Amino acid sequence: VLDLSALEEEARARLDPGVYDFYAGGAGHELTLADNVAAWSSLRFRPRVLRDVGAVSMETTALGTQLSLPVLVAPVAHQRMVHPEGEIAMARGTAAAGSVMVVSTRSSTALEDVPAAAGDAPRWFQLYVLRDRGWTAELVDRAREAGYGAIVLTVDTPLLGRHLREVRDGFELPADFGMANAPMSTAARAATRYDVSARIEQAPDLTFADIGWLAERSRLPVVAKGVLRGDDAVSCLDAGATAVIVSNHGGRQLDGAVATAHALPDVVDAVAGRAEVYADGGIRGGTDVLRALALGARAVLVGRPALWGLATGGAEGVRAVLDHLRAELDLAMALSGTPDLAAVGPDLLVRTVP
Amino acid sequence: VLDLSALEEEARARLDPGVYDFYAGGAGHELTLADNVAAWSSLRFRPRVLRDVGAVSMETTALGTQLSLPVLVAPVAHQRMVHPEGEIAMARGTAAAGSVMVVSTRSSTALEDVPAAAGDAPRWFQLYVLRDRGWTAELVDRAREAGYGAIVLTVDTPLLGRHLREVRDGFELPADFGMANAPMSTAARAATRYDVSARIEQAPDLTFADIGWLAERSRLPVVAKGVLRGDDAVSCLDAGATAVIVSNHGGRQLDGAVATAHALPDVVDAVAGRAEVYADGGIRGGTDVLRALALGARAVLVGRPALWGLATGGAEGVRAVLDHLRAELDLAMALSGTPDLAAVGPDLLVRTVP
Amino acid sequence: VLDLSALEEEARARLDPGVYDFYAGGAGHELTLADNVAAWSSLRFRPRVLRDVGAVSMETTALGTQLSLPVLVAPVAHQRMVHPEGEIAMARGTAAAGSVMVVSTRSSTALEDVPAAAGDAPRWFQLYVLRDRGWTAELVDRAREAGYGAIVLTVDTPLLGRHLREVRDGFELPADFGMANAPMSTAARAATRYDVSARIEQAPDLTFADIGWLAERSRLPVVAKGVLRGDDAVSCLDAGATAVIVSNHGGRQLDGAVATAHALPDVVDAVAGRAEVYADGGIRGGTDVLRALALGARAVLVGRPALWGLATGGAEGVRAVLDHLRAELDLAMALSGTPDLAAVGPDLLVRTVP
Amino acid sequence: VLDLSALEEEARARLDPGVYDFYAGGAGHELTLADNVAAWSSLRFRPRVLRDVGAVSMETTALGTQLSLPVLVAPVAHQRMVHPEGEIAMARGTAAAGSVMVVSTRSSTALEDVPAAAGDAPRWFQLYVLRDRGWTAELVDRAREAGYGAIVLTVDTPLLGRHLREVRDGFELPADFGMANAPMSTAARAATRYDVSARIEQAPDLTFADIGWLAERSRLPVVAKGVLRGDDAVSCLDAGATAVIVSNHGGRQLDGAVATAHALPDVVDAVAGRAEVYADGGIRGGTDVLRALALGARAVLVGRPALWGLATGGAEGVRAVLDHLRAELDLAMALSGTPDLAAVGPDLLVRTVP
Repeated sequence: VLDLSALEEEARARLDPGVYDFYAGGAGHELTLADNVAAWSSLRFRPRVLRDVGAVSMETTALGTQLSLPVLVAPVAHQRMVHPEGEIAMARGTAAAGSVMVVSTRSSTALEDVPAAAGDAPRWFQLYVLRDRGWTAELVDRAREAGYGAIVLTVDTPLLGRHLREVRDGFELPADFGMANAPMSTAARAATRYDVSARIEQAPDLTFADIGWLAERSRLPVVAKGVLRGDDAVSCLDAGATAVIVSNHGGRQLDGAVATAHALPDVVDAVAGRAEVYADGGIRGGTDVLRALALGARAVLVGRPALWGLATGGAEGVRAVLDHLRAELDLAMALSGTPDLAAVGPDLLVRTVP
Repeated sequence: VLDLSALEEEARARLDPGVYDFYAGGAGHELTLADNVAAWSSLRFRPRVLRDVGAVSMETTALGTQLSLPVLVAPVAHQRMVHPEGEIAMARGTAAAGSVMVVSTRSSTALEDVPAAAGDAPRWFQLYVLRDRGWTAELVDRAREAGYGAIVLTVDTPLLGRHLREVRDGFELPADFGMANAPMSTAARAATRYDVSARIEQAPDLTFADIGWLAERSRLPVVAKGVLRGDDAVSCLDAGATAVIVSNHGGRQLDGAVATAHALPDVVDAVAGRAEVYADGGIRGGTDVLRALALGARAVLVGRPALWGLATGGAEGVRAVLDHLRAELDLAMALSGTPDLAAVGPDLLVRTVP
Repeated sequence: VLDLSALEEEARARLDPGVYDFYAGGAGHELTLADNVAAWSSLRFRPRVLRDVGAVSMETTALGTQLSLPVLVAPVAHQRMVHPEGEIAMARGTAAAGSVMVVSTRSSTALEDVPAAAGDAPRWFQLYVLRDRGWTAELVDRAREAGYGAIVLTVDTPLLGRHLREVRDGFELPADFGMANAPMSTAARAATRYDVSARIEQAPDLTFADIGWLAERSRLPVVAKGVLRGDDAVSCLDAGATAVIVSNHGGRQLDGAVATAHALPDVVDAVAGRAEVYADGGIRGGTDVLRALALGARAVLVGRPALWGLATGGAEGVRAVLDHLRAELDLAMALSGTPDLAAVGPDLLVRTVP
Repeated sequence: VLDLSALEEEARARLDPGVYDFYAGGAGHELTLADNVAAWSSLRFRPRVLRDVGAVSMETTALGTQLSLPVLVAPVAHQRMVHPEGEIAMARGTAAAGSVMVVSTRSSTALEDVPAAAGDAPRWFQLYVLRDRGWTAELVDRAREAGYGAIVLTVDTPLLGRHLREVRDGFELPADFGMANAPMSTAARAATRYDVSARIEQAPDLTFADIGWLAERSRLPVVAKGVLRGDDAVSCLDAGATAVIVSNHGGRQLDGAVATAHALPDVVDAVAGRAEVYADGGIRGGTDVLRALALGARAVLVGRPALWGLATGGAEGVRAVLDHLRAELDLAMALSGTPDLAAVGPDLLVRTVP
């Protein structure tokens, strides 16, 4: 991997244009999609010199789970669309790199099949609370039983954002995609698929109270994904969440939502050390990871970069993307005089965040 | 309607280039025309999560009149230039969408003919105070008698802005356009048309005192349209106006005038809840509507978008534009955690307004 | 004149490219040249409404001299390069428009010949203090005797800026240009021209004290042209200047110097009403004139726009440019609710000046 | 030399593309490379007028060494790649212009050969502390014995930045380049070259304490090059450094590091007059030099511009570049009313530094 932009071009060349657009695109006029990337880039470093960086360590933990680098793999739907081994390959590559994969509710592989095929590396499960709360409860139970270590609750998707690329492309999911986790047999699902579609739709009436229910039901840490405000982050924690992910869903939900880099400081300030704060959206290199850590993120998640790795090289491609980020972060840490993550703080950045 | 930019392109393809330019253009170098759109786009959201948005309501009132969405249709002159049914179709489409149309003094349909043909949905009348105050008074009386619910007094047009596109295009209105509301028969007008032109010109000596006269004469609420400063808004209210519209006339009057989005907070602050404040100019989607509401507007007006709907689909096209805005606003409200308009406030936006 | 950009294009088409570049260009990388125009444009208006603008008056005075509009014609060298009648035509057009022309030391017409041919309208003389102070004194005496009403002392040209366009074009002045005001016969000058060149060079050792000498010698008001700082403006006044012109020499001297629009407020603040402050550089329309007046300028000067008028239409072209600015300023004043210049103030502008 | 951009184009045309990219490129996405240039350009001057600038003096000293202009020649590796006489020619041109050359550890000419061939003009030696500290000590001893007047310790290169242009170009140094200063014979080096490569690599474990060791060992002033923070600058001085160079290594180390122009004020403030502060990176003309001096730099260093001079004209080309900067600075000082360097201060600039 030379750099992630080049990798994306390579993936684009291999993928069906509609599939590429499905993943690469954002909501509306893609203001937030573009902002996510630009906002990290616009942050300038104040590197430190003459610190001993003969050994750089980026090991950390997320919810107590060991990470060889402060990067997790974000939940991405329907991964078999970009590679025949889909989530299995993503899981293998992620584990090989010493990271944690977040498996999506909209996985194209049943959540039990991922650990079965890819082994029992630490893995989290991303949950959409569905209109059918019974199915939702079943999903949660299955995730716990399958060994997932946390529930990543998506909180920014009461409705799906409107993706103009998909409308223009006339894009439709292949039949049966997005249902691998539905709690009934394929045959049964086929027989009732319109009804199923409705029932697996995200619940628009989710509130903070659901976090408490979820924590209780799952007996797992609940990570609220999609928070962009300090007050909401605190409300999530008060309601029982263990951690939050600052995210605008990769620019795929509310177009015009603040870039992650610009929202992160408010959330970090409000959370004030009570909990781990992660961030995703627009991370395109090791320096972006370092910027997020400097603003107070415990770790970041990458979605599209990992997906382009999957598209171009399967499990090996995923691993190569994570190793690329590791190498870039290692260099960035060395060049900013921060031999370990404890040394990374806000003074590494020029204050230009609005 | 996929999005309003695409719709404008479709309208452009159908219209005579001079007619398109007449409506699409602005004054001078079109700085304000461009700013209007860019200023809304530059405002970033801080969406709330985990609010129950299972039911989103955007119903509201404007001057006590029910609106199914917080969007009115701005006054636009000479609508028969873009569609043979002109103002009649605009009125029908607006009513079908549950909105309120503001009929222009420069309507190409006599003000009485709009309700006659399109029914008695709520409708407001936009007034240019003319050099001939007698005719002005007659217009006001006719509007009241024809059932219009408010007088929208344009306050930013003591002279007409200079539209370079029209000069370059050598554009001229078709004969008799712009006179449908003149208070005499077509034959009489034809016989005296040069004189008429002079007398229907806007009065350049309008002052706040005219608002009081107008309110008294019309016995209708007077809405001052074209205010860009808090102090002027207060003066309008003190003089008898019931509400104000923050507007720079769609960038067609003073080139270089502040964008509506940047003027709105000052007006809202100064008015301090005494009256309803509306805004127009540059609204190009549901997220722009939400931005205006977050800055304190009661509702917005759309002119060009409705006109492109009229040009491409007559009454149905107008309705489609309003329904598109409704759908986009519904989604934006859901994704920002605001189930109704009372929940919309300035904290939804990152503070970057100058 | 449709607008001044179009006029410049027309002039460019008519002129020798080297001559066009000589006037259109600036120093260095032309940062300041571009900034001058952009800085005015970036200022946004907060227009007032409902003021009686039935009659707009822009009459004013500069140093007590009546002006039909708050625009003077800036000194420009060698005007016969763009039109055979050169300064004579410029003087006639300026007088016809009711403005004041500033005749350059580097005029291609002897300073006495301008009033002789163009009549005794008010006119000022721009002075470069030369290395040869004797000649300088003679120039001053001649200007007074020829009826010039003020000396405009250029203070920003101890050395000439470096104009890359001229170097790239290999541009050279036609023989004898730039010497019409030299105080000896053409024959004598021809015989000694290298020496003359040296002696007519600007003095690099000019100081504030020279203003006192100049005021005494000329018995005329001295206007210091080229001031960009409040402290310097005050020093000029303390030294005997009657007024100052905020100017960066049209971007032709120090590349990177602050734009006039950004320097003007500091000078106006420091002068604090003690003297008239003018501004030039980048004025490209009536709204720019209004912006300068709103920031506290008594009047503006235009150089290149007047020159493009001269190039395209001689005296009539100059008059057309000034009438164009008058018409645009009239409209801008009407649309901003300022019926006369006393009503123009800083509250007309959004505060975005750095 | 017309201007330095044109000179770079000329050099580019002459050089092998891989060699050009090796020098012209920066790290990562070259954000800092571009910022360096843009940040100087964005600073606007507030020139003074009416100061006697009949004689402009830019003579100064750096560490007590006389400089005919406040510009030194930055260390650049492997100069024989761009001209057969490499560092010898650079040294001759620099001396001829009255400036000081900093010879690189990675010189393609042995450090003793530079004074031997180019005479004993003042010259400094840039030091990379190598993994092999014994060799490092030898280098220091040799530099002192060869008459170098200071050690410029690079502090921003514990690891080499990643230069994507080199990776894309598949660029490799010619055999033996970069080893001219290795403390053993060519034959011996050839026999052990992989091992040598490792041993000449920069030490990643350098700390402030090494400055003390270096000062003691070298008995020369130590200048810390690559500082971007005030606190680090003070730590360098506390550890025994005599001066600091604000630098991001020409954008070749941490991509996203703050531009020199934006870091300089913080360092100057923190150093508070205790020591000389220099700056390099992005200086592309005399006005940039003046900007750096106005922000408090004692002098600047230029790397790429001198190299383009070397590439296009050998020693004469280097001298021409320095003379060009001298002429531009002379003009800029005259036009800003600063007849000598003592007159240059922060009030020359509009305050827009973040």
